[in-house]
Amino acid sequence: MKKAIFPGSFDPLTKGHLDIIERASRLFDELIVVILENSEKKTMFTQEERLRMLKNNTSHLNNVIVDADTSLTVTYAKQHGACAIIRGVRSVKDYEYELDIASANQYLNPEIETVLLFSSPAYAFVSSSIIREMMKYDVNIDALVSKDVKEALMEKYRKS
Amino acid sequence: MKKAIFPGSFDPLTKGHLDIIERASRLFDELIVVILENSEKKTMFTQEERLRMLKNNTSHLNNVIVDADTSLTVTYAKQHGACAIIRGVRSVKDYEYELDIASANQYLNPEIETVLLFSSPAYAFVSSSIIREMMKYDVNIDALVSKDVKEALMEKYRKS
Amino acid sequence: MKKAIFPGSFDPLTKGHLDIIERASRLFDELIVVILENSEKKTMFTQEERLRMLKNNTSHLNNVIVDADTSLTVTYAKQHGACAIIRGVRSVKDYEYELDIASANQYLNPEIETVLLFSSPAYAFVSSSIIREMMKYDVNIDALVSKDVKEALMEKYRKS
Amino acid sequence: MKKAIFPGSFDPLTKGHLDIIERASRLFDELIVVILENSEKKTMFTQEERLRMLKNNTSHLNNVIVDADTSLTVTYAKQHGACAIIRGVRSVKDYEYELDIASANQYLNPEIETVLLFSSPAYAFVSSSIIREMMKYDVNIDALVSKDVKEALMEKYRKS
Amino acid sequence: MKKAIFPGSFDPLTKGHLDIIERASRLFDELIVVILENSEKKTMFTQEERLRMLKNNTSHLNNVIVDADTSLTVTYAKQHGACAIIRGVRSVKDYEYELDIASANQYLNPEIETVLLFSSPAYAFVSSSIIREMMKYDVNIDALVSKDVKEALMEKYRKS
Amino acid sequence: MKKAIFPGSFDPLTKGHLDIIERASRLFDELIVVILENSEKKTMFTQEERLRMLKNNTSHLNNVIVDADTSLTVTYAKQHGACAIIRGVRSVKDYEYELDIASANQYLNPEIETVLLFSSPAYAFVSSSIIREMMKYDVNIDALVSKDVKEALMEKYRKS
Repeated sequence: MKKAIFPGSFDPLTKGHLDIIERASRLFDELIVVILENSEKKTMFTQEERLRMLKNNTSHLNNVIVDADTSLTVTYAKQHGACAIIRGVRSVKDYEYELDIASANQYLNPEIETVLLFSSPAYAFVSSSIIREMMKYDVNIDALVSKDVKEALMEKYRKS
Repeated sequence: MKKAIFPGSFDPLTKGHLDIIERASRLFDELIVVILENSEKKTMFTQEERLRMLKNNTSHLNNVIVDADTSLTVTYAKQHGACAIIRGVRSVKDYEYELDIASANQYLNPEIETVLLFSSPAYAFVSSSIIREMMKYDVNIDALVSKDVKEALMEKYRKS
Repeated sequence: MKKAIFPGSFDPLTKGHLDIIERASRLFDELIVVILENSEKKTMFTQEERLRMLKNNTSHLNNVIVDADTSLTVTYAKQHGACAIIRGVRSVKDYEYELDIASANQYLNPEIETVLLFSSPAYAFVSSSIIREMMKYDVNIDALVSKDVKEALMEKYRKS
Repeated sequence: MKKAIFPGSFDPLTKGHLDIIERASRLFDELIVVILENSEKKTMFTQEERLRMLKNNTSHLNNVIVDADTSLTVTYAKQHGACAIIRGVRSVKDYEYELDIASANQYLNPEIETVLLFSSPAYAFVSSSIIREMMKYDVNIDALVSKDVKEALMEKYRKS
Repeated sequence: MKKAIFPGSFDPLTKGHLDIIERASRLFDELIVVILENSEKKTMFTQEERLRMLKNNTSHLNNVIVDADTSLTVTYAKQHGACAIIRGVRSVKDYEYELDIASANQYLNPEIETVLLFSSPAYAFVSSSIIREMMKYDVNIDALVSKDVKEALMEKYRKS
Repeated sequence: MKKAIFPGSFDPLTKGHLDIIERASRLFDELIVVILENSEKKTMFTQEERLRMLKNNTSHLNNVIVDADTSLTVTYAKQHGACAIIRGVRSVKDYEYELDIASANQYLNPEIETVLLFSSPAYAFVSSSIIREMMKYDVNIDALVSKDVKEALMEKYRKS
């Protein structure tokens, strides 16, 4: 059985993430979508909130598992028997960033492959940070995040 | 069972290609390495010679199959039940080239994914054309192609 | 009155070109779409055929004029009272190519501006050459060229 | 009448900005240079100071208007009847940054076009932040900012 | 006598830095490796600690001198009679960053050349910041920093 | 004594080339500007003509020598006791091209360094091929090539 992991912060989960998750889930027998926390970075949503978003939005994909951890990416992959780390690339900048991370991971564990998927053109500009930025203005983000994520975002902004 | 194809000209097969083949073969249950001919482009080696090079150098990989065809890449992938097209990327230039091809393939058949693997740093400059170029000079290419490919190249240059 | 030119080969005209033409036509009082011939380059369609394609597909845009010429781009722009050369960019590669051409044009005539528009994501992979390439295979190009261009392409391939 | 906006922070205004303003003012009937504040980002100069710099340096351009606002860029453009957002690009990094912003703006309002002008080579390295950095050292910035901006900068550094 | 400087933060010194130092030392009669402090940026190692790392690891290179200063790079180069500033490039991102700095330096003093060396592929992903990041996890960094630097890093992390 | 080589086709010599030659000549004790012929590529000017252009335009630089050869670049460098190959970079595209060549040369002879200089902004768009292209039109190229090169070009175009 071939397993892959898709690590990220998902703060919040976007339709760009979901697109990669759906496409990657067709390439491997099992896909683990995992929140790998960098404890120093402050997030908008708690880990629990982000896990719930991921579960709500991947429940239709039988071979997708959702998790959260504090390990190094390659350590997590190895412990869970995954042969691949999935990453979406949206731009040359992303490509170079991923190359650096992949080279470091290759140094740390040459058995774990980094596998790049091209972001769909419609989501090439979509990132968690641009979503958070857009929320400051009264704009429609329906095409960029799922319904429950939108509600969670609106909840946050109402409070702040 | 998850299948992938690795299409190319392999004119000739390099250690850069072999590195991608070995790594991709660990990610899928079956990997078909396929010479997809663009009939107009003149090649140094005949299709038969290139198939033999591929067979000689992948015989140790149980789940790798070697083939040649004239179909469009996505058509070939679909006919052989593959869900992914594997491509190695060595540079930003490669990345942008692959994005164009992947977008066209996505338009032609959205069910077939393009999957990018980063070339190993040691092979980032290695291409079939640089090998052909190097053969014009008396230089050592042992680290760049396998022994049988080197002999086939020397044979060609002796004749010409 | 502000005029701009949109120079190209249009061999053949794609929906990517049409998208730029429509968007540019809203920015200027008049837009001249001009086939600027590099006499050495062999084209698939005659100048007459390409002019007809452009006319057929821009007739709904009141401020768009179609032309063909053999002048240097900046010379043509100046002679026709245009202040801007419109170019669509699809990629970093396009960006760097356009920078070179724009710098040369700036050297030749600093009064004529090069104005870049981003290609729409849906057309980022579409070029005349990929269309010509696709025609070699039996694929559906309806989303990439207009109906009359498709017919002209099929005519060409039937003959060859 | 065709209007465009040139949004920015202008903290402080550089000769690179002025070059884009002069060139863009020749392409449109009216150009609004607008300070669009991201309230969270701390600036060196107050909005009032930056507006004065812009007014001082664009008074010779009849069709240039100076303004400041807190709206989203596309909202401001629409409210003021502008069809285009002008942006200068100095590098591939700028290009990719602008592509992201332009794609988001295109999503928010497809009627407003983003129009890129290449920075003049002489100003390709000039940014407000490099000017602020240079002020820490006793170097000559006469070729990079106008006289009144230089004086305002020297005033700030004398105080701090 | 031709002199060059290699400025940096070296926080900490990596094998990537050492590779550039060794290679640059063969191109010039004298190479000054200089810590040029940006006083605002907080460093992990004190200037004294970083100078000691540089001295320990370059003692086998007769024409390499180690120094620290607070001047602007071009000012330091001129004062020490150097004709060149050496910089290693690992990526397109590095290339564009160096182009900006080099253009600013060229503006400040056209007599001082910026000279780029390509990072060795094995060190293309290695930076001081990735080393600091890796230290948070229990991973082997022996191939990335020298023995004494590793010990200094372990000392720091034990304390924090 | 430190020697470097600056290899190229110089078909024809541009002011961009001359700028690199002058700047590189200040970094090394001796600079050999060498026409390294790829026998298959057709050139506009004969080797003799190009050698004369180089000699005419570098006679004021005491430590610059002009030569022509058919060896591989690293072989030529080694035979002439040079430690460095000088290359000018004008763009990201150039950067990636040079990285490939430098990596191949590093593989062939790790003792010879590739040293990159940034092209001056004014010459960033200037190449031998754009000069040849411009000659087809009646444009002023005085700022791009020296007087004798311009005359040689005009001679060629008058004949053809």
